Amino acid sequence: MKDIIKKASLAIAGLSLLATCANGTTELQKVMKRRHLSQQDLLAAAKTYLPSGHRDKYMVFSSGGQSGQIIVWGVPSMKILKYIAVFTPEPWQGWGYDDDTKKILAEGNIRGKKITWGDTHHPALSETDGKYDGKWLVINDKANPRIGVIDLRDFVTKQIVVNPVLKSEHGGAFFTPNSEYILSACQYAAPFDNNYHPMSEYQAVFRGGVTMWKFNDKTGRINVKKSFTLELPPYMQDLSDAGKKVSYGWGFTNSFNSEMYTGGIEKGLPPFEAGCSRSDTDFLHVYNWKDLAKLAKDPKNYKIINGMKIIPISVAVKHHDLFLIPEEKSPHGVDVSPDGKYIVVCGKLDTHDTVFSWKKIKKAIDNHDYIGHDPYGIPIISMKKTMHCQAELGLGPLHDTFGKDWKNGEIYTSLYVDSQVVRWNYLTCKVQSKINVSYNIGHMCGMEGKTETPQGDYVIALDKLSIDRFDRIGPLHPQNEQLIDIRNKKKMQLLYDLPIGLGEPHEAVAIRISKLHPWKVYPIGWDSFTMTPSKYKTLAGQERIVRKGHHVIVYGTVVRSHINPEHVTVNLGDTVTFHLTNLERAEDETHGFTVDDYNVHTSLEPGKTVSVSFKADREGVFPYYCTEFCSALHLEMFGYLLVKDPNKHYVSVKSMKMKKMSPKQLKAQYDKIVATNNATNKVVLGVVKFLKTNHYQKYPLIKQLINNNAMVQYAKVAKQQKLAEKNLKEGKIMNAILFQNEAFQYLVKTATVGIRAQKLLVLKAATPMSPAAKRGHQAYLEGGCNGCHVIGKVSSGPDLVGVLQRHQNGEKWVKEWILNPKKDYHTPYIEALYHYFKMHMPNQGMTGKQVDDIIQYLKWIDKNANLF
Amino acid sequence: MKDIIKKASLAIAGLSLLATCANGTTELQKVMKRRHLSQQDLLAAAKTYLPSGHRDKYMVFSSGGQSGQIIVWGVPSMKILKYIAVFTPEPWQGWGYDDDTKKILAEGNIRGKKITWGDTHHPALSETDGKYDGKWLVINDKANPRIGVIDLRDFVTKQIVVNPVLKSEHGGAFFTPNSEYILSACQYAAPFDNNYHPMSEYQAVFRGGVTMWKFNDKTGRINVKKSFTLELPPYMQDLSDAGKKVSYGWGFTNSFNSEMYTGGIEKGLPPFEAGCSRSDTDFLHVYNWKDLAKLAKDPKNYKIINGMKIIPISVAVKHHDLFLIPEEKSPHGVDVSPDGKYIVVCGKLDTHDTVFSWKKIKKAIDNHDYIGHDPYGIPIISMKKTMHCQAELGLGPLHDTFGKDWKNGEIYTSLYVDSQVVRWNYLTCKVQSKINVSYNIGHMCGMEGKTETPQGDYVIALDKLSIDRFDRIGPLHPQNEQLIDIRNKKKMQLLYDLPIGLGEPHEAVAIRISKLHPWKVYPIGWDSFTMTPSKYKTLAGQERIVRKGHHVIVYGTVVRSHINPEHVTVNLGDTVTFHLTNLERAEDETHGFTVDDYNVHTSLEPGKTVSVSFKADREGVFPYYCTEFCSALHLEMFGYLLVKDPNKHYVSVKSMKMKKMSPKQLKAQYDKIVATNNATNKVVLGVVKFLKTNHYQKYPLIKQLINNNAMVQYAKVAKQQKLAEKNLKEGKIMNAILFQNEAFQYLVKTATVGIRAQKLLVLKAATPMSPAAKRGHQAYLEGGCNGCHVIGKVSSGPDLVGVLQRHQNGEKWVKEWILNPKKDYHTPYIEALYHYFKMHMPNQGMTGKQVDDIIQYLKWIDKNANLF
Repeated sequence: MKDIIKKASLAIAGLSLLATCANGTTELQKVMKRRHLSQQDLLAAAKTYLPSGHRDKYMVFSSGGQSGQIIVWGVPSMKILKYIAVFTPEPWQGWGYDDDTKKILAEGNIRGKKITWGDTHHPALSETDGKYDGKWLVINDKANPRIGVIDLRDFVTKQIVVNPVLKSEHGGAFFTPNSEYILSACQYAAPFDNNYHPMSEYQAVFRGGVTMWKFNDKTGRINVKKSFTLELPPYMQDLSDAGKKVSYGWGFTNSFNSEMYTGGIEKGLPPFEAGCSRSDTDFLHVYNWKDLAKLAKDPKNYKIINGMKIIPISVAVKHHDLFLIPEEKSPHGVDVSPDGKYIVVCGKLDTHDTVFSWKKIKKAIDNHDYIGHDPYGIPIISMKKTMHCQAELGLGPLHDTFGKDWKNGEIYTSLYVDSQVVRWNYLTCKVQSKINVSYNIGHMCGMEGKTETPQGDYVIALDKLSIDRFDRIGPLHPQNEQLIDIRNKKKMQLLYDLPIGLGEPHEAVAIRISKLHPWKVYPIGWDSFTMTPSKYKTLAGQERIVRKGHHVIVYGTVVRSHINPEHVTVNLGDTVTFHLTNLERAEDETHGFTVDDYNVHTSLEPGKTVSVSFKADREGVFPYYCTEFCSALHLEMFGYLLVKDPNKHYVSVKSMKMKKMSPKQLKAQYDKIVATNNATNKVVLGVVKFLKTNHYQKYPLIKQLINNNAMVQYAKVAKQQKLAEKNLKEGKIMNAILFQNEAFQYLVKTATVGIRAQKLLVLKAATPMSPAAKRGHQAYLEGGCNGCHVIGKVSSGPDLVGVLQRHQNGEKWVKEWILNPKKDYHTPYIEALYHYFKMHMPNQGMTGKQVDDIIQYLKWIDKNANLF
Repeated sequence: MKDIIKKASLAIAGLSLLATCANGTTELQKVMKRRHLSQQDLLAAAKTYLPSGHRDKYMVFSSGGQSGQIIVWGVPSMKILKYIAVFTPEPWQGWGYDDDTKKILAEGNIRGKKITWGDTHHPALSETDGKYDGKWLVINDKANPRIGVIDLRDFVTKQIVVNPVLKSEHGGAFFTPNSEYILSACQYAAPFDNNYHPMSEYQAVFRGGVTMWKFNDKTGRINVKKSFTLELPPYMQDLSDAGKKVSYGWGFTNSFNSEMYTGGIEKGLPPFEAGCSRSDTDFLHVYNWKDLAKLAKDPKNYKIINGMKIIPISVAVKHHDLFLIPEEKSPHGVDVSPDGKYIVVCGKLDTHDTVFSWKKIKKAIDNHDYIGHDPYGIPIISMKKTMHCQAELGLGPLHDTFGKDWKNGEIYTSLYVDSQVVRWNYLTCKVQSKINVSYNIGHMCGMEGKTETPQGDYVIALDKLSIDRFDRIGPLHPQNEQLIDIRNKKKMQLLYDLPIGLGEPHEAVAIRISKLHPWKVYPIGWDSFTMTPSKYKTLAGQERIVRKGHHVIVYGTVVRSHINPEHVTVNLGDTVTFHLTNLERAEDETHGFTVDDYNVHTSLEPGKTVSVSFKADREGVFPYYCTEFCSALHLEMFGYLLVKDPNKHYVSVKSMKMKKMSPKQLKAQYDKIVATNNATNKVVLGVVKFLKTNHYQKYPLIKQLINNNAMVQYAKVAKQQKLAEKNLKEGKIMNAILFQNEAFQYLVKTATVGIRAQKLLVLKAATPMSPAAKRGHQAYLEGGCNGCHVIGKVSSGPDLVGVLQRHQNGEKWVKEWILNPKKDYHTPYIEALYHYFKMHMPNQGMTGKQVDDIIQYLKWIDKNANLF
């Protein structure tokens, strides 16, 4: 036995892993052999595999690069959970295809121009005391200088703000430790104004800057009026970070063109890439955002350009709020240590990371210890005097992230050119170990690695090239995000390659999932953008079509498996608005809505009320339907928009057919209409009987409705019918048909008004509702029950009159059924119902209290059963 | 020892799997414990985990639902490799943000309206002899009846066609066995014309249909003119499949509203869901597409509506090409067995799948054995007589896929309501085993399961709800695609849950990856939409800016790490076009391009030439840059678009500054300009010397250039300088500066023309190139070498004059270096070069032959070194 174990065992960290037993290789071994997996591969699989329904530990929010989105995935499973639409229209989410999201996107218009994409770069999570609080997420757009704000209750973008003075914006977004401000730096210097200036005026007019966006952590909105921009020289500012603890109140931003080179390859000059990297050092900008924020309150300290407060360089210098420190040439990342004591700058074109000591910087600032001033008058502090240490890391150090043992110096840096991650110690500047990545890593994501609480066993390499890592899909390759296990200090282990098939993740932040508290469903009739009840909330039974001039407004509902209304007829040229409420209460019961060929679409998560508007600019018949596969009857969940030209005379195909009919066929047609009229009249008489029995005259409103409206319509019926009979006798059968049709119109109008009166009378005539029954009625409506059940009638679901009597221990049965319908799905009774209605009772997520109230409402119904 | 093994071993299929050794639990066991993994989980991990750089066996193409895209992933790894943009603009790919892709999207305009999304449903891969040939992929849009065609050489959409008669299109796309046609059926019946018709004319005017799109398998394009539509009754046609082998030439389409119910819930009528499922059966449509295609060639058999040929029902019936067979009520999938002998229809609202026998159907057709006719005159064939068998599967059978043992009846069906996959036998109609999925499975994807060659060990459940499977991300949940191992007939195993965080995959097709042959890079200067050389191809050295009236055309290049040109100045109101060629030959070296605030973006894969146009409608300074993180100097890869208002007078900041200058400062300014002029004059004199030495007068074109252009400009210099000196003497220093500036303008113009003449002269004066050197010159240009190397000058890369002499065994060294630069990256010489140029020589993917030719070209350069 020992021999067998020995033979089959393979070493991982010195321990035996696999054994065969007497009857041969295990199934696992067979699979490993078949799939060419090594022991290390198996270990990596075990470290990342997430069985169905299990949970990840961290959630990553990565920018989507040029997709203009944010990508959300779990760690360690590396499963992508969502693409959050931010700057780019995305129809699955309805983003930019319904009224509400069009409004958010329009906030991002620049100088009146619609911008329908973004080059997202740096996501940031809101912080309280320097730690992630799981409430808000922001992201910048480099190409069109904007910031998007995402609400982590529903993972939806709620605000877009435009930077009116910068022309590109790369070095953001970075929250200050209590989310007071979002720092966001310019990239390519340009004039703050919107005018033409020649390249020769680069030094004179082109400017960089850092915008401090004021953030309200309660509402999750940027306050543009309270925000300001610090003017900076045209040094091409790059990344930033905010100080923490001892360095709290300060901001740090580096730069890559302190040469102020202006390019011109087409004129035979060296290209930008050469000119911008001529000098051996560039500048780290050090500024006191807290002091500057105070200055920005006094108009003498700022000028206003394009509506944005600008604090000029001279003002910042005068108040000792802005300094420069030389740093390795054309650096990239700048990262403040969790205790705020060190600022780590990556060399990019240098092989070093430089660790600056905040204490030393502060001392130089306090002592006015400058080595000179730049051409714009900004004091320059000595690099040598403020440096803590410098580490030789390799080629192309780009970005850092701190590890959980940061107190003892644990830090990781990406090496772009070497395609490696290096673990080193930022206190001693000693390199510890390296791991190869595939390939050309840009940013790197540690678990909460940019906060005061770095943690976890992983870093993620955001590789820019994947080259040969994946199956080929043509010249455009996916990106490659690699999960690396950092438990073993001496030897990091590559765990997983995640291809990104849409977008180029630039930077990512990771948060412990337990800090997030997303909503499961919206309250019924919810406006998810203001996060308040919608003014267009529509419950079952409240559906209606309202015309206001040339605007047709549909208040509709959606519920498995119908859209109410199903027919909407409008005139060519009308504006049509659908306000739709999803009545579902069950998690994940999302519906969608589109009108064919009208380029609108929306996603209706449970409870949400959404609006969709468009101009009915083409005549015709346009199906609309639910676009989410919501139930077995999903395909049957549709309706028709009919767009009629009011200036056109339509010849009915039916009447054309009638022209070709024989007298016998015409008589049959006449008889059919008479039969319909008789049936309709029966409905009217039924209503009349109900009204009289229940003394409708006692109630003025109802009396008025009947006498002044219904009776007037009804009186016209007999006249039309007489005319019909007269024409019939005279052999004018076509006319007879038309008069009977007219009678039908009056009958329908009578019935409509009568039924409205009947409904009102029910409430008057019935016994009064107890407070509990009233609450129950409300819960019944808000819970969407009305979507399938019609009281007094078998509809898409059974009639609920008598439901408490139909079952033994009726109240108990009903309560359990509502709270957990699934458990009874296979009882014979429910199976029979299923076969009739073709739909199961869904779990609408009611509380026990709500169900108790509903039972009181059902009792009230039973007491008044005669009225329904 | 035995005891320890026993204690630790866990049974999988009766085999012992894990063992501890004497010194405790293994690392694997620790990981499993920490992550709560069972033995089954570990096995599933081993079956799906794909180590870095390994390859998958199958590639899945799934529709993206309402995202309007296609999602590509690998099996068994379930890693998403790409979202292919089809109907929806997607900026990462440049889709809809550059000229070329805007054209493709515009093909999808409907009645003049731009439609910017699609509800993609059913992808299909092109077939040869009923087997996937890996060449083309098509997908339908349900909401806006269209088809998109994707080229699998580069996984890019190449065509969009609009169906001009259908108003929604669900039941497509399905290829016929040799990709002759793509079948695509209507969903919601509507009038074929574009006019208003009331709902009451549903039976008279509303119609369904199946469009047979003619496909050219060579060009990969749909030929709209050769396509036609078979008119069908308004039965709400659903899915389709094409017959195979014995049933080749026939098509099968089912339906769900043979009731012809027209809805009207808002009028108190039962909703569509109830009315459409009233009858116990609907109709399977059986039609002979091959015969119909012949009929469609004779105008007497069709009418034309909105430009589409329509074969009326009556014509199809008359020619015995259309039949109906009753099928279980409101069915969903219809699937033809790999041998074409059986047609399997899923019940959806019935618990059965019905297997029809093609032999029996054909017999009834041949014998005119009908049980009646529908109201439109279509013969109805008996269900009973044509049925092979019927299987009771469970609640909500939706879709089928065949297994590799299909000859013995292996088939899988999704059960929507039961949330299960059932394995059964379509020959015996016996159920074999079931597995639960999470939750509400729609379509199902077997490996090539819809072709004549079903294979593989997996089916994928495309679940519509995920509910509790993943970490919560708010009310909108991801979808859940579950990989199921079907090796074990008696017990299927769930392997992997893949969340889809963007879009709702509706249907998917899987192909063996070895059948695909995607390109790695494009040939240089390639138009990827026509797949031919681009007429805008621009090589290094050919960059230019051309003005044609109000159109400014930039012929530019991109290469690590610059865009050429770097400055583009235009007038407000100009139309600007950038034709850009990516000079890279290395795989995955994609660049991107955007102009800030102008809402354009493009993705430039290696070799591609793309065009980006926009109107310069706002004055100002707009950076443009490479949006892909392409090299360490990526941030430095940018330029400026300067938009000048031609009607505005600009006051130079410099001249304003001069006004404030002291006489001494002004004199310094004057001296600076004189120095610049002297330096420029030296360049001119150098050129003149070169021209004279090489006898430029001998060449008429060059002579003309010099005498009629350069000399004319140069003659003006002296005059301006004299005026400057005169003014200086008179103390009019401001004027003196202006005249020197003027002199500078003429000097620059002289130099520009002179250098052009010099370049021409080099070619004339040099020794003639051998054919090999000529080829080498071409390879040098096409290979993008010119992007970094300038002959005779150190530029972004070293000067290549003398490169063969600089190295021992120069030719050998250069050849090896070009073919595999990476291996020398860490030699001291190359490291030194790297430190100077900050960029490594990339592997441009040259062939040995090409490099040999380039060496001949370099030899030619050396021979004529005096000319450079």
